[in-house]
Order: sequence, then structure tokens, then C-alpha cells
Amino acid sequence: MLKSEFSTKVNYFPQLLDKIKTKNACVGIIGVGYVGQALVRALLSAGYQTYGYDIDKDKLRSIDHKYFRPTTDIRNFENCDVICICVPTPLDRNRKPDLNCLRQASSDVASLQRQGQLVIVESTVAPGTLRTFVLPIFEGSGKKCGRDFYLAISPERVDPGNTRFTIKNTPKVVGGIDEISAFLAVEFYSNFIERVVPTTTAEVAELSKILENTFRLVNISLINEIKNYADRSGIDIWEVIDTAATKPFAFMPHYPGPGVGGHCIPVDPVYLVEEARNKGVRLGIVESAIAVNEAQPKKIVQEAKKALNGRPNGKKAKMLLVGIAYKPGSSDTRESPALKIWEEAERRGFRVSYFDPHVPKLNGHASKPLNYETLLEQDVIIIATDHQGVPYEMLGSLNKPIIDSRNILKKFARNNSLKSKDI
Amino acid sequence: MLKSEFSTKVNYFPQLLDKIKTKNACVGIIGVGYVGQALVRALLSAGYQTYGYDIDKDKLRSIDHKYFRPTTDIRNFENCDVICICVPTPLDRNRKPDLNCLRQASSDVASLQRQGQLVIVESTVAPGTLRTFVLPIFEGSGKKCGRDFYLAISPERVDPGNTRFTIKNTPKVVGGIDEISAFLAVEFYSNFIERVVPTTTAEVAELSKILENTFRLVNISLINEIKNYADRSGIDIWEVIDTAATKPFAFMPHYPGPGVGGHCIPVDPVYLVEEARNKGVRLGIVESAIAVNEAQPKKIVQEAKKALNGRPNGKKAKMLLVGIAYKPGSSDTRESPALKIWEEAERRGFRVSYFDPHVPKLNGHASKPLNYETLLEQDVIIIATDHQGVPYEMLGSLNKPIIDSRNILKKFARNNSLKSKDI
Repeated sequence: MLKSEFSTKVNYFPQLLDKIKTKNACVGIIGVGYVGQALVRALLSAGYQTYGYDIDKDKLRSIDHKYFRPTTDIRNFENCDVICICVPTPLDRNRKPDLNCLRQASSDVASLQRQGQLVIVESTVAPGTLRTFVLPIFEGSGKKCGRDFYLAISPERVDPGNTRFTIKNTPKVVGGIDEISAFLAVEFYSNFIERVVPTTTAEVAELSKILENTFRLVNISLINEIKNYADRSGIDIWEVIDTAATKPFAFMPHYPGPGVGGHCIPVDPVYLVEEARNKGVRLGIVESAIAVNEAQPKKIVQEAKKALNGRPNGKKAKMLLVGIAYKPGSSDTRESPALKIWEEAERRGFRVSYFDPHVPKLNGHASKPLNYETLLEQDVIIIATDHQGVPYEMLGSLNKPIIDSRNILKKFARNNSLKSKDI
Repeated sequence: MLKSEFSTKVNYFPQLLDKIKTKNACVGIIGVGYVGQALVRALLSAGYQTYGYDIDKDKLRSIDHKYFRPTTDIRNFENCDVICICVPTPLDRNRKPDLNCLRQASSDVASLQRQGQLVIVESTVAPGTLRTFVLPIFEGSGKKCGRDFYLAISPERVDPGNTRFTIKNTPKVVGGIDEISAFLAVEFYSNFIERVVPTTTAEVAELSKILENTFRLVNISLINEIKNYADRSGIDIWEVIDTAATKPFAFMPHYPGPGVGGHCIPVDPVYLVEEARNKGVRLGIVESAIAVNEAQPKKIVQEAKKALNGRPNGKKAKMLLVGIAYKPGSSDTRESPALKIWEEAERRGFRVSYFDPHVPKLNGHASKPLNYETLLEQDVIIIATDHQGVPYEMLGSLNKPIIDSRNILKKFARNNSLKSKDI
């Protein structure tokens, strides 16, 4: 049905579908960060010739494969049948959605002379963004969706460091501006991803991704909020969570920490809140969750202040941040709560340094070696990220105030029957 | 270790422990509602002689077993070695925690002459309630915990209608006022429940239960809140949830509705918020979730008003509520959102009647027969509870405004390939 309906209107469809089905499509990826990179690798191992465009040459250099064509010139994408846009959609300085990268990538692709390309946005965006923000950029160049190009959205679900669920076995949600675009994008992903989930509209796909991450933010903030009460009452929130998690239905444990970081979870709910506000709907729960999350770093610094109780007299207290990346095993520091703790701590008069096995250098600072010499000169230590391979025994054996925002010392002590004092 | 430590201080412990271990303990249950009843049945099938106390004789009559001793006189509990308090802990008219039943039950048990009883509270309470509310009632009668009686808490996790997880295979959380009380309670439950989860303090047990239900309320309210936005934007929230639920990690789907009902989920978070407020901690996310939940019935009535668009002119519009119990398959109407819709609808000038296969009579009203005659005289129909066995085809075939708060008609149409119009 689709084919016949289409052939009367469009010439590009049969050839593009054939190329996709036979894996002869040439694919271009805009933005070779961790999302684009995962996609490039999946495409390469499925046998696709793949172009990668990025302004950061280091990212392009990190992929070495005979079918990989790195480029910093978007005009090379004239060769591509399918283009995936994997650019970041962060927040600006005022913590408002920043769509500049997406605007640039969209107008770059729209400027290509080539006709009949399938363009898929993998960036996480507010519902309606594909239709009311991306599509007009293409139409502004005189192209018409369904005639001159096809436009779909498939929000990335890459979970860095997750070895069980990779891009290949994580179901891929796909929505299109129209049925044909959705159909082509489903065919495309079905070639190298185990399960593709089509949605009836692009907006459903967009909102489903934001819902996933809003769920995370709200639940992590909820447990951080309840921890405030538990701490005040002398109740061990970690034991409470482990206890609740024995319920075999209708519960999912989330854990406290210094706040959520990364490019997604603290960011996506802000896109939703803004978009809802534009539609005249207030999202009070989500707003409360964002507020709790943003207050976490300040809370940690207050705890440090309290633990020091005025020490050291007359000079700046030294704080060591252990773990600066936003999650264990990662070097990614985007939206990392550790950086916010750093900023807040400096504002409150601390001299801050850091240790992170995955982040040797950051903003002109270098990761300190984690040895007794380093540790003994600190006044307070903040464990912000629970990386593996950190000498937690050594930390646990110190007679220093430690704010262990991840409860890793207790876990470590329990697992290793370590006789450290209960800190 | 426990035994020797104890035998020097207390005389009742060895005998009580022996009775518990050999299942010769006589058990008394105060409050034979659905929680107490599930417990009574589990005890009876494990071979325990079990007393049941309730002021409602009908509840006592509903259990017929040779080892069951129903009573409306608490003095019969002098015979009991173990007493479980399963009374409700609802909200009062001002929506504040109402501990009157728990106070009464505690002082009833405290008034017994018998020494060396193990008393376990199964009611859901705010953290600290066992120690600061129940314990003083016993101590006020001159009894000392650990000498004259033992006191523990094991918040019930009974999920009415859940056939997969019953009291026997749902892990039982147990915390005690002291180690001995906890130890005895763990031994007791281990005799007839597959897995018992001891906590280091009573407060951990108390908070774990409240966390479980606060998780539920927050997540259901979150999706109701996001539905407000989705509705405004013309996005199908049900499809969004099903799409997000294809994510194989870090997501758990929750579904919109007219608000959560029942004795637990809308109530327990209020206990937490009140207790936190007493400790000077504000729980903004939980408060927002409660507010969203309480606004749901009003929202449904507004939708009904909007659907009617001023009809019928000059007289009261007739509204039929389909499903009045708070959950499918249940006859329980406690905190049911349907009742709140009813109240709100009457305030807004509707004439309300109801149909519920499980609730033949309610507050002087009778469930209407669900036939064309009944349906045709309605102006608007609200599906508040998605009971099975309701003629949804008939509802779907009507040319009437229907507010389907459970999306059951779509599900039904999909499952039965019913050609009903998309309402």
C-alpha cells in the first residue's frame, strides 16, 4: 500500500527503501559524541558505509574502521541516503532549553543539494520540536517533507557504561512527521537493532523519552527529599530503601546522592516543564523535583561545613572531591553535581581539589594522586561519584570528616568485612 | 547469645520462644478487616489457634474454621501469646493522620493482665509511632517492654486481589522496639511466611512501608500531571506510557486515572508529610503529588461539564458513575476517587447514580442495572473503575459523552477488534 501510494507522488522512495533494505544506504551521523559514536559503531558492524561529522576532530579520530568516513565538512553528506542528527540539546546559562546545535545541524542538512534523504533526529527534545522547530528549517530551504526528504525522530536511549543493554538490544522508538518517514526510519533501524517500536506520531516518541528521564529525576529527587527527613530523624535511608526493595511488586528502588548529572536526566525534565508552561500547564511535581535536585550540591557543602564545625581556624578549609564525573566508570562531567559542589564550596570559602581516575585534567586542574600524603592535608573529603578502583579502605581508615554521598564506604566495608568505623 | 542474655532478665522469653517455634503459640488478631483476615487465614492454615477481635460481627462471621475463635471481648485475648494489631490508620475529616483505632487497640492490649505477650503492630504508621505513641500507652499501664511484653512492628503489605503475591510469599518486614522483640517477631512470622526481612530499628520498618506507598502516589500523580500537558497538546498519554515501557531498564510504567484510592496509597504519604513537618522538614515533591491526586476528581467533573457543553438546558444533567470501588475486582470504597467525583459532581449540579457489580448498595443508593434503559437516560458517563465483567461494548456503542478515566474502552476495543468510534 505504502509503495503504490507513494510512487505516484515521489520518486525517491522506492530507491531509498531498496538501499535501506539491502543495507546499501550510505549513512551520515552528525555529532559523534557518545550517542553518535554508539550509532556509528553499530552501523559499521552491520556493514554500512558511515560518515561521521563533528566539529571536534578528536571525536572523529577515536573511530578507526575501513568503512568510516570522518569529516568536518558537511558537504560530504551529499553522499548520504540516511542522516542521523545526534547533537546535544543542553540547557543554556539561564537553565533554559538550548536548541542551537539542533538548529545548526538541521540547517546544515537542509542546505544539502541532495534530494530524497531520510533525516532522523536522535537528540532528546520537547514534544512538538520535530514538527514545529526542525521541519520549518527544512521547509525554509524550499524542501517539502515526503517529497524532497523524509523526517523522523528516534530519541537515543544510550546508557553509557551499560553492558547489558546496548544500542542493539535496547528497543528503538521511532516516530515520523508522516507515515512514510516513520516507515522508512523503522526499516532503517530494523536492520541493526533487535526491536523497533513505531509510534503513531513524532510527538509520542518525543514525550516517551522525556517521560523516561522525568521518571528518573522525580524518583531520585524524591528519595533525596525523603533522606532529608530520615537524616533529621536518625533513620538510615539506605537500609530503608533496601528494605522497601524486598517488595516484589509495585516498587523500584532509587538511591540518594549529590544530585543527578549528565546530559539527560537533569536536563530533559526542564524541556518538558518549559514546553508545558508554553501550553499553559504547570507541572508542580516535576518542578519540585528539579528544585530538590538543584539544591543537592548546596546541601552537601552545608554538611561539610557542619562536619568541620569552624575548623580550621583562620584559614581556608581544604576539600577533596573524590569522583568528578557524573557517574561511575565515566569521564563525562556534563552537569556533574561534583562540579556544582566545587563551585558552591569555593563560594563558601573552601579550597577545592579533586581526584578522579577517569578525569586526569579539568578546567586547568589536575586530578590529585590519591595517597596518604594527599589525604592527610585535607580538612574534609566528599565522595561525589562511586567509581570502582578507588582505595576506599584508605578513605575509610582516615580520621577525617568524610561526606559519603553514595554510601560507598559502608557498602565497601560490608562487602569486605572491613573493620572501619561507622562514619 | 540472645537466650542467655535474656534468661537473666526475663522469665517469659524461653517459654514464648518455645511456643512460637513449636507453633503452639495462641495468636490474637485485633481488627479482622482485609489485612487481619489475610493474616488469620495464613495462621489457621499453618495450624495456629487464632483469636479474632473486631467490633464488626460481620467480619468475624466471614471466617469459619475449627481453630478460629471470634470474639468481641478483648478479655479473651488473655489467652494469647502473640497479638497482632491490624487496625486501620486513616485520615480524619481534616485529612490529618487519625490514630484513634491504634490508640484504642494499644490500650486494650495494655490493659490485659497476661504477662510476656508479643505484640506486633501491622498497621501502617509514620516513623517513630511505635516508639513514641504505642510504647508509652503500654508503659502507662506500668508494663515494661522487654520484661513484661515484647513490641514489634511489621507493616502489612497485603495487596487486595493480587493472586501472585499473597501474605505467604510477600517478604515480611519486621522491626522491634528492642532486639529481643524483633527476634521473637521474626521467629513468629518465619513459621508461616516464606521470607522475613528484619530491620535494625522499628523506624526503618515503618519508613520502608511509607516509602513504598509514597513511591506509588508520587508516580501515579506524576503521570496524571503529565497527562494534563499531553491532553492539552493532543498527545495520547497511554501510547506514550506503552512506548516508554519498552525501555528495558530504569523505567516502571504507571497509569493515569481519577486519582488513587484505598486505605493506603493516598493516606500513607500524608502521615509522612505530617511527621516530616513535625521534624521541620518540608517534602515538596510528596506535597505536590498529594495535591495533584486530590485535584483529580475535580478535573474529571470539569471534563464532564466540558463534554456536555451546557446540555441539558434548564435541568440537572444526569451522571452515571461506572465503578465505585477504588480498584478493579474490589468492593472497597475507602478513599475511592469515584466517591469524590460523586461529591464534586453533586456540588456542580449533577444528578448522580452509579453502577458497580461489587458494590450493590452504598449510602442509601443502589447500584443501577447496566442496561440500555439505564444508559439512555444518562447525559454523561464516567468510567471510574475498570472492573472486569462490565459490558464495555455497550458503553462503547453509545452516542453519549463518556469520560473513560481508565482508557478501558480503547483497550477493550483493541483486544476485541471492536469497531467502536474513538471516544
